[in-house]
Amino acid sequence: MELVLTDFLDRAVALYGKKQAIIDQDGIAHTYEEVNTRVQRLSHGLESLGVTHGDRVAYLAPNTLEMFEGFYGVFQTGATMVSLNTRLKPEDYRYILDHSGSKVLFVDYELVPLIEPIIEQLETVEHIIVHGRTEEENGMSGYETWLKRFPESPFPRADVKENDTATLLYTSGTTGNPKGVMLTHRNNYLHALSIQHHLRVSDRDTLIHILPMFHVNGWGSPFYYTANGATQVMQKKVIPEEILEKAEKYNATVMHMAPTVLNGVISKYHETKPKVPENMRLVIAGSAPPKAFVKEIEEEIGWEFYQVYGMTESSPLSTASYISTEEDDLQGDEYYEAKAKAGLEVIGTKVRVVDETGEEVKKDGTEVGEIIVKGPGVMKGYWRNEEETNRTIQNGWLYTGDMGTIDRHGRVAITDRKKDIIISGGENISSIEVESVFYDHPDIQEAAVIALPHEKWGETPHAIIVLKEGTSLSEDDVIHFSREKLAHFKCPTSVTFVEELPKTASGKIQKVKLRNLVGDKQ
Amino acid sequence: MELVLTDFLDRAVALYGKKQAIIDQDGIAHTYEEVNTRVQRLSHGLESLGVTHGDRVAYLAPNTLEMFEGFYGVFQTGATMVSLNTRLKPEDYRYILDHSGSKVLFVDYELVPLIEPIIEQLETVEHIIVHGRTEEENGMSGYETWLKRFPESPFPRADVKENDTATLLYTSGTTGNPKGVMLTHRNNYLHALSIQHHLRVSDRDTLIHILPMFHVNGWGSPFYYTANGATQVMQKKVIPEEILEKAEKYNATVMHMAPTVLNGVISKYHETKPKVPENMRLVIAGSAPPKAFVKEIEEEIGWEFYQVYGMTESSPLSTASYISTEEDDLQGDEYYEAKAKAGLEVIGTKVRVVDETGEEVKKDGTEVGEIIVKGPGVMKGYWRNEEETNRTIQNGWLYTGDMGTIDRHGRVAITDRKKDIIISGGENISSIEVESVFYDHPDIQEAAVIALPHEKWGETPHAIIVLKEGTSLSEDDVIHFSREKLAHFKCPTSVTFVEELPKTASGKIQKVKLRNLVGDKQ
Ligand SMILES: Nc1ncnc2c1ncn2[C@@H]1O[C@H](COP(=O)(O)OP(=O)(O)OP(=O)(O)O)[C@@H](O)[C@H]1O
Ligand SMILES: Nc1ncnc2c1ncn2[C@@H]1O[C@H](COP(=O)(O)OP(=O)(O)OP(=O)(O)O)[C@@H](O)[C@H]1O
Ligand SMILES: [Mg+2]
Ligand SMILES: [Mg+2]
Repeated sequence: MELVLTDFLDRAVALYGKKQAIIDQDGIAHTYEEVNTRVQRLSHGLESLGVTHGDRVAYLAPNTLEMFEGFYGVFQTGATMVSLNTRLKPEDYRYILDHSGSKVLFVDYELVPLIEPIIEQLETVEHIIVHGRTEEENGMSGYETWLKRFPESPFPRADVKENDTATLLYTSGTTGNPKGVMLTHRNNYLHALSIQHHLRVSDRDTLIHILPMFHVNGWGSPFYYTANGATQVMQKKVIPEEILEKAEKYNATVMHMAPTVLNGVISKYHETKPKVPENMRLVIAGSAPPKAFVKEIEEEIGWEFYQVYGMTESSPLSTASYISTEEDDLQGDEYYEAKAKAGLEVIGTKVRVVDETGEEVKKDGTEVGEIIVKGPGVMKGYWRNEEETNRTIQNGWLYTGDMGTIDRHGRVAITDRKKDIIISGGENISSIEVESVFYDHPDIQEAAVIALPHEKWGETPHAIIVLKEGTSLSEDDVIHFSREKLAHFKCPTSVTFVEELPKTASGKIQKVKLRNLVGDKQ
Repeated sequence: MELVLTDFLDRAVALYGKKQAIIDQDGIAHTYEEVNTRVQRLSHGLESLGVTHGDRVAYLAPNTLEMFEGFYGVFQTGATMVSLNTRLKPEDYRYILDHSGSKVLFVDYELVPLIEPIIEQLETVEHIIVHGRTEEENGMSGYETWLKRFPESPFPRADVKENDTATLLYTSGTTGNPKGVMLTHRNNYLHALSIQHHLRVSDRDTLIHILPMFHVNGWGSPFYYTANGATQVMQKKVIPEEILEKAEKYNATVMHMAPTVLNGVISKYHETKPKVPENMRLVIAGSAPPKAFVKEIEEEIGWEFYQVYGMTESSPLSTASYISTEEDDLQGDEYYEAKAKAGLEVIGTKVRVVDETGEEVKKDGTEVGEIIVKGPGVMKGYWRNEEETNRTIQNGWLYTGDMGTIDRHGRVAITDRKKDIIISGGENISSIEVESVFYDHPDIQEAAVIALPHEKWGETPHAIIVLKEGTSLSEDDVIHFSREKLAHFKCPTSVTFVEELPKTASGKIQKVKLRNLVGDKQ
């Protein structure tokens, strides 16, 4: 039997048809049967536009009902879902839409201005349909009116194979130009089977979709929460106050987000003290969370902290930071430190840390090497980029470009992006380690550490700091604070204070931008 | 990446290498690293006997360390594991060994007498190696001495593909001659990924292997408990007292068994009142458990009751009887009844109930049809039996030969084997429904109901009853008891009392034998 993602919606409809499936962006509840009806209409509609097996259909939308149903509606036709990051520039959209060869584009009404400037130039897009609009405007159909034109009868599905590309996702672009990652039905399906188990997903869950679904399919969440018949609440924008309100209102049990978003949520939590269920699970990934967050979440707020690690190229998750039976002796700080690491390889996926010769590093939690990953979630390849594909996947191993350590229990920690490591006086410094220290300071809201060129040492760490409202610190204060906690050679020798750190839509700090910013200032 | 079962042991060794993996039949603990070392030796040993990719290796053994390591040792060579039911007759072994073309046979020392009479006649077996013996005897090597001859260096694995046959299992033979079911690595792997999730398996588990591993690979348990790094305790014989002692001694958290075995465990529990952990999960399948068991387990003993349903041909499990969010209003008896049913389709598997024309029956929990199943666990086919394969799998659907109902929540209940249904006066009577009633009687230990020919009604139900020790009941008592609980036409019109019901090694009541027994008596 082919592993095809539409199975997951089928199960939800069969077992949870009358259940609240999606609470949409306007707070309206839709059952799995209702969502399924919309999905059927959508597939019929796509067919009427000439979309067939193997075509690409693009989505430019935040977390909405329309985005969610897009996955399944597109899959039924055998086409590939191309979900676009909502934070790009018109020029980027032109590039990705042409590069992917998308035939149809769905766009949220609030994002129409982002594509208006480039509509005329698009080479392959034949139809644009606007979510949240009813009327046709400038040649773009209004989604709801358009959708209603098509029958709700079961769509005769294409003969989809498990190795067909289900989603084509462009990476976050943290380290350079985004690349188009082809994930097959099989990739996403097997990722779902393993991750649901490690995250203990069940029909008792209510998930708030905070992490954007355009970003690696929201870590696959629209697949495994659906398979399990959970309730899914759409959160269009990352506004901590709204997130906490929804958590309270819908008795949410689980939320996925990046550390930077969590940072905002924690601050807001202390301000508003909402009544959020005690059994809340927080699933954090995207970059390394400081250990201080784990402590705050588990000890002060009382929720359960999960960390996971992955990348678009692996569907994405490869590790989970649960504490294994072999680590039950971890106490206090050690425990929080362990949970703040990327964690243990998930079932089905092999994770290794290798040196430049390809040998595994010592399992001592200290020796640093590149993380490589082999598993059923590893992408088919980069779309129309064989060279980069062959560079990234070697002998079935995905070279992540992330540096890290592994300890005797198999716990992996990410120390840095390969491109972000600071080399000072011949010593490697993990920017993540240095950053983590600043989150222990009561006045610091956010911190990033990058390399600056240095005559004597080659490079030296430079800290970029965002202070909490109403506080003040000097450059010296910051440097001294770090010297109390770290070996001197790891400590920043200069500091820039900023109002805000530049971030990707999925909440990653953009070090490339920081390097430009600091470079310009000097 | 190919889905290959050796991945699971690899993960256990990487993350749980120093953990107690197997408590063997003599109570000795072996870590995952130690087991892995034995597995390497075994593969080297098999290679030295000429076993290569695609060969068959047979095992005749109860639940022992040697049996467990056999799976992974055989898999590494690319050969297929043929595990033999320990309750067959020498003639049956001759048939299966020749039919499967097994090259090597491993046999437990206690079972040697079962194969001695046929050794000379075996057509393909070239080597016999005896577990639990050190010395060579009658041309059969002693396992431990043999194993030690081979190096513990990592065995260079065969290039195993996911669609290679991992295990060749002969069915229980409840309804006729056993058939050889080919399950691929992929079948077993995907079954494991889904079932571990539904059974909430984790590294916190200690499983007692009660259900024989030769029976559908112990419902796949040596795969998913290993992947999760659980501790696995070997139980060689089904002796309720020993089972409960081990549960107490090892703080077991989970046990899998058939209802008939559970019946014995419950009786013994009330006698000896062992201190078994309160969070014990019981996973029951093989035949339909009476609702009375669920109540007893959950209300009186305080353990958690799971039911699952499946068959060898589907790896085996297709449903799980957890109570879904849609059924939270079930109270008291309704709740126990629901849990005593086969349950909801597991993630990845589709379960339908169809009438003779192939149409789905009404989802009313009443209309009876045949259960058909489609999923990644459905076998490759019957070994060397294309005709039967094509009869059983049609358009990718496995025709189970089990009759049942499905309700509006998708809950499936097995009412009977197709071959066991009793048709009286044109009405179908579910033997399972009638049997279930007798388990509410305080003096009845076990009950089975079969059809007897009847002049007027065509067939009529006949009860075969085992009384509890020290009790007595008359035929009339039994019939009257059933009339208080069931429509009259469903009630037995005659009764046979016996000391014991004939059962398969996996604990299924053999109705074929009962029919012969009762037929002979008449
Ligand atoms: N738990 C984590 N801890 C540390 N880093 C993480 C974690 N999870 C994800 N990451 C980082 O995010 C990366 C994956 O992100 P993603 O695939 O979204 O695009 P990107 O790598 O940021 O962008 P691009 O590849 O275009 O530069 C990983 O390679 C890793 O560097
Ligand atoms: N939870 C359950 N409730 C009712 N019946 C069950 C359950 N689980 C398994 N069974 C029965 O067991 C059967 C599968 O058993 P198995 O594959 O071991 O061989 P068998 O069918 O007993 O033997 P054979 O096919 O050789 O006659 C199912 O087809 C079903 O009849
Ligand atoms: Mg990347
Ligand atoms: Mg059968």
